[in-house]
Amino acid sequence: MPRREPREGRDFKMVLVIRGELRLTAGKAAVQVAHAAVQLALEAEKRAPAAYSAWSSAGQKKIALVAPTLDDLESLARVARAKGLPVVIMEDAGLTEVPPGTKTCLGIGPAPSALLDPITGSLDLL
Amino acid sequence: MPRREPREGRDFKMVLVIRGELRLTAGKAAVQVAHAAVQLALEAEKRAPAAYSAWSSAGQKKIALVAPTLDDLESLARVARAKGLPVVIMEDAGLTEVPPGTKTCLGIGPAPSALLDPITGSLDLL
Repeated sequence: MPRREPREGRDFKMVLVIRGELRLTAGKAAVQVAHAAVQLALEAEKRAPAAYSAWSSAGQKKIALVAPTLDDLESLARVARAKGLPVVIMEDAGLTEVPPGTKTCLGIGPAPSALLDPITGSLDLL
Repeated sequence: MPRREPREGRDFKMVLVIRGELRLTAGKAAVQVAHAAVQLALEAEKRAPAAYSAWSSAGQKKIALVAPTLDDLESLARVARAKGLPVVIMEDAGLTEVPPGTKTCLGIGPAPSALLDPITGSLDLL
């Protein structure tokens, strides 16, 4: 049995935030979201097994959102890190739509919705 | 050092194929692609460590494609399974855009491009 996190409940999710100003195609955005989700999932499995289990047992919920600029992504990342949440920012290899090293997508979680929603709850859906 | 697969080279990737007839939003499609990618990555890490290492060391390449119908997805899945490749077909919980249990996305890999391209090389990019 996974360890319980009774104070946060079991409504865990992962939030993936695309950088809107890049105007990525649907396929490119999907790949960036998937990169971030895979990295967060693998890290959580190793380093945060209770959060990983809570997230997995609830269907590995993922939400894809959009924030306009890189400044927005970095600001969201700072707030999430200050709350102790797992954060990744993906950089693209730049072989197709954007220059190499372009930051494309922020991922946060898996974490309780109660902690994520105050950070990303006002963003638009991708 | 990961074990080498000299016959297939080290050009490993993961292919994620969205079911086009569902006309999912970009965000919904991205989440389905991410679901499939996470499941394939976690399975590969446990059950196919050589393929996982080859894929990881080359940047965890992912390609998002689209096939028109469920028949197309299932046909591609059969061909991939017959070649011994890792395959997942995601079913959506159906809380938003599609009925519960709707098959939304096929994932294949990580596997050598030389094995994947004959199966999915003619599909359109998402």
